[in-house]
Amino acid sequence: MSRKLVPVVMCGGAGTRLWPVSRDTMPKQFIPLLGEVSTFQRIMRLLSDGAVFGRPIVVTNAEYRFTVLDQLQAIGVSAQIVLEPTRRDSAAAVATATQLALAADDHAVVGVFAADHVVQDGALFVETCRRASEVAAEGRIVTIGIPPTHPATGYGYIQPGEAIGEAARAVAAFVEKPDAPTAAQYLLDGYFWNSGNFIFDAATMKAELEAFEPDVVGPVVEAVTQARNDLDFLVLDAAAFGRAKNISIDYAVMERTKKAAVLPGHFGWSDVGGWSAVWDLAEKDGEGNAIEGRGYVLDGANNLIRSEDALVAVIGLDDIAVISTRDAVLVTPKSRADKVKDMVALITARGESEAGAHREVQRPWGRYLSIDLGVRHQVKRITVKPGGILSLQKHFHRAEHWVVVRGTAEVTRNHETIVIHENESIYLPIGCVHRMANPGKIPLELIEVQVGSYLGEDDIVRIEDIYRRS
Amino acid sequence: MSRKLVPVVMCGGAGTRLWPVSRDTMPKQFIPLLGEVSTFQRIMRLLSDGAVFGRPIVVTNAEYRFTVLDQLQAIGVSAQIVLEPTRRDSAAAVATATQLALAADDHAVVGVFAADHVVQDGALFVETCRRASEVAAEGRIVTIGIPPTHPATGYGYIQPGEAIGEAARAVAAFVEKPDAPTAAQYLLDGYFWNSGNFIFDAATMKAELEAFEPDVVGPVVEAVTQARNDLDFLVLDAAAFGRAKNISIDYAVMERTKKAAVLPGHFGWSDVGGWSAVWDLAEKDGEGNAIEGRGYVLDGANNLIRSEDALVAVIGLDDIAVISTRDAVLVTPKSRADKVKDMVALITARGESEAGAHREVQRPWGRYLSIDLGVRHQVKRITVKPGGILSLQKHFHRAEHWVVVRGTAEVTRNHETIVIHENESIYLPIGCVHRMANPGKIPLELIEVQVGSYLGEDDIVRIEDIYRRS
Repeated sequence: MSRKLVPVVMCGGAGTRLWPVSRDTMPKQFIPLLGEVSTFQRIMRLLSDGAVFGRPIVVTNAEYRFTVLDQLQAIGVSAQIVLEPTRRDSAAAVATATQLALAADDHAVVGVFAADHVVQDGALFVETCRRASEVAAEGRIVTIGIPPTHPATGYGYIQPGEAIGEAARAVAAFVEKPDAPTAAQYLLDGYFWNSGNFIFDAATMKAELEAFEPDVVGPVVEAVTQARNDLDFLVLDAAAFGRAKNISIDYAVMERTKKAAVLPGHFGWSDVGGWSAVWDLAEKDGEGNAIEGRGYVLDGANNLIRSEDALVAVIGLDDIAVISTRDAVLVTPKSRADKVKDMVALITARGESEAGAHREVQRPWGRYLSIDLGVRHQVKRITVKPGGILSLQKHFHRAEHWVVVRGTAEVTRNHETIVIHENESIYLPIGCVHRMANPGKIPLELIEVQVGSYLGEDDIVRIEDIYRRS
Repeated sequence: MSRKLVPVVMCGGAGTRLWPVSRDTMPKQFIPLLGEVSTFQRIMRLLSDGAVFGRPIVVTNAEYRFTVLDQLQAIGVSAQIVLEPTRRDSAAAVATATQLALAADDHAVVGVFAADHVVQDGALFVETCRRASEVAAEGRIVTIGIPPTHPATGYGYIQPGEAIGEAARAVAAFVEKPDAPTAAQYLLDGYFWNSGNFIFDAATMKAELEAFEPDVVGPVVEAVTQARNDLDFLVLDAAAFGRAKNISIDYAVMERTKKAAVLPGHFGWSDVGGWSAVWDLAEKDGEGNAIEGRGYVLDGANNLIRSEDALVAVIGLDDIAVISTRDAVLVTPKSRADKVKDMVALITARGESEAGAHREVQRPWGRYLSIDLGVRHQVKRITVKPGGILSLQKHFHRAEHWVVVRGTAEVTRNHETIVIHENESIYLPIGCVHRMANPGKIPLELIEVQVGSYLGEDDIVRIEDIYRRS
């Protein structure tokens, strides 16, 4: 087969099951949960195998666009980044990818992959995708079925039907998450877990969408046709996309089509669906404790400890997760970690900002971390990427002192431009129009001391912004 | 009785059982474990009852001298602060207090109290002390025995003998910490817990010390005679005190004297000997969860949560303690909290600074907190008390930028004196001789940004210091 599979990675979701590490402002798929890179970067690396895959399409939303760009640049992978103007369930994203692939090739074969799943055997995963795309090219929608390792109640299952070629089977039925006895029966009957990753002939998918859900595909085709390029992103037309029906691809197509097939994936798969799954995948010591960061266990086994900063000490407990970030600590038995989303709902209701926002804030020019907050002052550590430029701005209620501790800053202050180096500082009085840029080749780090009567992030008037933020 | 009881509070200890809140640099007795004030401040307030007590004597060591002074000033209590030049077990401290009391009054009655115990009924405690001092005045050494509420194995017990007057009994025997069956028998036999607090006729105590342990009392008398006043402190003579035998008052006198009596203390007592005891004493919600700081519990009961800063979320666990400080988190079942000292030993062996040092550092002029540490920079928030003056100093490896965020600083920089106000800054280049003072009436707060190749606290040359630190 010379035709390349067009991989589509969907990474617009914001789950809370891995709180406090995963939050709205930096969700699970962008976090290095296992090793040095994020699950998004892991899957993107696998999908860069040019022997099998074409240029990937990443579907995300505006909030994560610079994170996607940064993470792709960090691993040296190029992709088309498509921004959904409003959040829609998966059918609209699949329709978008289908339409983009068809625009380039009438016979395109597309694979849709989650950004937050992990596979153990990358080579076998790629080979499985290649074989699935051969089946798909015959006009099939091929889901990758995972041979179950235990009677899980957290996944949907796939009942396989008659054989198609060597390894694939037709899908007899997709079934919902079962109770435990049903799950046990499914294992006996040879069902697969539904991994939610699937590979299809684009023309077939479009025809099925047109047949089953014209209210998805019609608006999406219009949104793609009228899409515009903005910086490094393809932005779908908001008015058209907003009219697309909000439905999952499972309900829209998979559970209705007669063209579904299933190909077993033996590559070792996890959806990293909670802290228990993270422990399953993590390296452990002789007592089964998986420790990331500074963690110590006395008289305890099979614990998961993750710490960003603080020293974590656990005494006399087994099978628990202790997740310590700069501003929040979670303690729970791993077996109860499915309740994390309820805890997030509880603290959201109490107005705790840690429910959804990280203390470290990502920006297209870099990032900042609030390191001290008083009644009339705040201190931030700001990091600006080489070439990064903050917006031209002013504040009504605060003055700022900047001390450069690494690199070089080019500061605009009213009508002056001043270059300041490591161990130099500058003062920005209330009301002055200012901008900072990193003209250098290494990251710029500075300490910002804000002094004023109101220190909220909304005391900012953006006069000009190269990243086109409103 | 017109003669006042001379209260002596010993607060030189540094226990680890309440780590990570209690550490060497700021141990248990100085921490507000329950409510707004420390256990040291609580007992000092009780001992200020002028109807019963004379001016208190506080025995501590050099490391805690400014903390003692600060905490006494904060509650408006005056005391004589005596510094032990070297650490010695309790016999030397008791001998010191005895000698100081006798120097003022041949018939002095002295009470020795721990700085880290808590009583529930303050008025009854004071009344008990008054009655004990009446018994002591007859030439007795009166220990306050606590009627046991359960067969504890963590305390020594007192076997009472024949009656002395109305409520006191002679001591038949002091017995060591028992095993559980023995403890149960002790309860049936009417034994008391040994609280370690006792009240005695000073001349009697001195005579007993001379009889049993002349190697304690001889050197101590010399150390008191040759003591010198330094700032607000009485510093015992180091050479003489160093010769005093290192032994506890229990072994030295209590277990040998025929003059011991016991008076029951019904005022509700705890030695706050671990996190389980803190939970016992704390206010709890309807599920028995005691929460200090931002803590949330889902499906859990009878937990102790303390947090200095981070939000702590506990799911599906009962009877545990989660203690979260800025730089360390402890998670343990309350019933296993006696292992905390083993954990501290473990992390000490691994070289973790959090074992013994707090991130916030107390100084005689105020305090500082490291809020950010990089390879070539550190940021501190520094608070200087009104009237506080830092030492005149210089650094070889770092420059400093100071931004005042509250109050007014008087800065000496080489030969200049510069006053800087809120929202003003000053730069101190490497090698310059500098000093900061707070000439104002409110605390001075400033942000210090250090930049340099070496940022250790030992890069400081102190040229002059009003607090006479070496």
